[in-house]
Amino acid sequence: MKDLARVAISIDKRLMARFDKAMEEKGCTNRSEAIRDLMREALVEREWESGEEVVGTITLVYNHHTRELSDTLNDLQHHFYHSIISNLHVHLDEHNCLEVMVVRGPSSDVRKIADRMIGTRGVVHGKLTMATTGKGLH
Amino acid sequence: MKDLARVAISIDKRLMARFDKAMEEKGCTNRSEAIRDLMREALVEREWESGEEVVGTITLVYNHHTRELSDTLNDLQHHFYHSIISNLHVHLDEHNCLEVMVVRGPSSDVRKIADRMIGTRGVVHGKLTMATTGKGLH
Amino acid sequence: MKDLARVAISIDKRLMARFDKAMEEKGCTNRSEAIRDLMREALVEREWESGEEVVGTITLVYNHHTRELSDTLNDLQHHFYHSIISNLHVHLDEHNCLEVMVVRGPSSDVRKIADRMIGTRGVVHGKLTMATTGKGLH
Amino acid sequence: MKDLARVAISIDKRLMARFDKAMEEKGCTNRSEAIRDLMREALVEREWESGEEVVGTITLVYNHHTRELSDTLNDLQHHFYHSIISNLHVHLDEHNCLEVMVVRGPSSDVRKIADRMIGTRGVVHGKLTMATTGKGLH
Repeated sequence: MKDLARVAISIDKRLMARFDKAMEEKGCTNRSEAIRDLMREALVEREWESGEEVVGTITLVYNHHTRELSDTLNDLQHHFYHSIISNLHVHLDEHNCLEVMVVRGPSSDVRKIADRMIGTRGVVHGKLTMATTGKGLH
Repeated sequence: MKDLARVAISIDKRLMARFDKAMEEKGCTNRSEAIRDLMREALVEREWESGEEVVGTITLVYNHHTRELSDTLNDLQHHFYHSIISNLHVHLDEHNCLEVMVVRGPSSDVRKIADRMIGTRGVVHGKLTMATTGKGLH
Repeated sequence: MKDLARVAISIDKRLMARFDKAMEEKGCTNRSEAIRDLMREALVEREWESGEEVVGTITLVYNHHTRELSDTLNDLQHHFYHSIISNLHVHLDEHNCLEVMVVRGPSSDVRKIADRMIGTRGVVHGKLTMATTGKGLH
Repeated sequence: MKDLARVAISIDKRLMARFDKAMEEKGCTNRSEAIRDLMREALVEREWESGEEVVGTITLVYNHHTRELSDTLNDLQHHFYHSIISNLHVHLDEHNCLEVMVVRGPSSDVRKIADRMIGTRGVVHGKLTMATTGKGLH
């Protein structure tokens, strides 16, 4: 299904050896795969900068006893339901919840949704993680 | 339930005004909350550096047609089942899957699990996100 | 010279204690100063996002034997002389040089200059560091 | 002087095309150079993680009117004179100074020196930038 090309690049032998050694230490023994991984990472960063369609995850930690917080977050999620694909909720202990939302859309929209969620009063920790639709990255 | 203290800090008036304005532009109108958020962020970073118990999310994007990839990831997840609390799987399109795992443990363990998952051949994108158990952050 | 305000914020006692302990471990025993530092950091990030006038440093490592590289970098620096305030050059060994440029201007300009410098063929390592004019941060 | 190897890697044609296009938009038209840059970046990150000898720059912004600050920073610099290669000082305005130090040593030492400098009372902004000795990166 894949349409592979053999690409030749010129690299100093010591640089190549150092790279191979570093990758091996990380448990990655396939040089082509290691190089493709670096290329993909650079492309995903670019997707986010250029405003293309991206996928991101928003991670929130909050105390579900906080008055009205669950309702507020729920309302927000429904407000953005077009962009929020799915949710995972974990009960960390009696008080703390962790929630991960998978969000899809233009990178500026995803950032805006994350800002709103993370800025909601009572959320003790929030993070937006850049991921990708995977298109054109294989 | 909370045991609140009133803490007085001395701040230059212009710095305070600039901070208030910046926070307002981000939609955050509560100064105490904005300052507490910065303190919590610094503490979560420290949890990760000092090897305390943390919670993290591992996000993977991969093509589920890749030979043996789903099996390999599944095996890995069972190998680390003590640390992996829960999983969310999203079908991005005919080929691409996104998977988020919520992982809990000492930060070095969580990093190791993330390295193994992200380094698995066929994973086109992977990221470890630092979150927290929420303990002592309210 | 300073126009100080006493600002009272309400913080949970355990959160305050954890923060004090974490700062103490980093050698910072002044709570007000630690909180002001977090506020300033947030403001500097904002300066860069909002396109205000910023100061940045561009760090380059390169082999000065690389054909025409010193000339190319020199030409580029003169091309941007309005924005580049000053330069520091260190001879790392027989082959390698490190150069730090201090650049001032709207954040988008500073980013563009950094991209051009870092992307110059023969530069083995380059980084843009966000700093600030210091205005309104005291 | 260089000992070049031709290395063949297999890459999906669409991934290659996307990467070429992204690099071209950044002004980088040499594919080998773009890939080598990614490899070097990964290696520099590793140098810092593994505690090897590194070079870093410490950037400080401070008000030189702050009582005893210049003396304190000067004393610190002399205390660490073995590691601090060189300094660049820029007068940003009547009050604000920017100082860049080039520091060399094991990464943990460089981090410690940066923590001390950045944590000095009166420093309004500080950053440690990871650079490299350039050894084995050509």
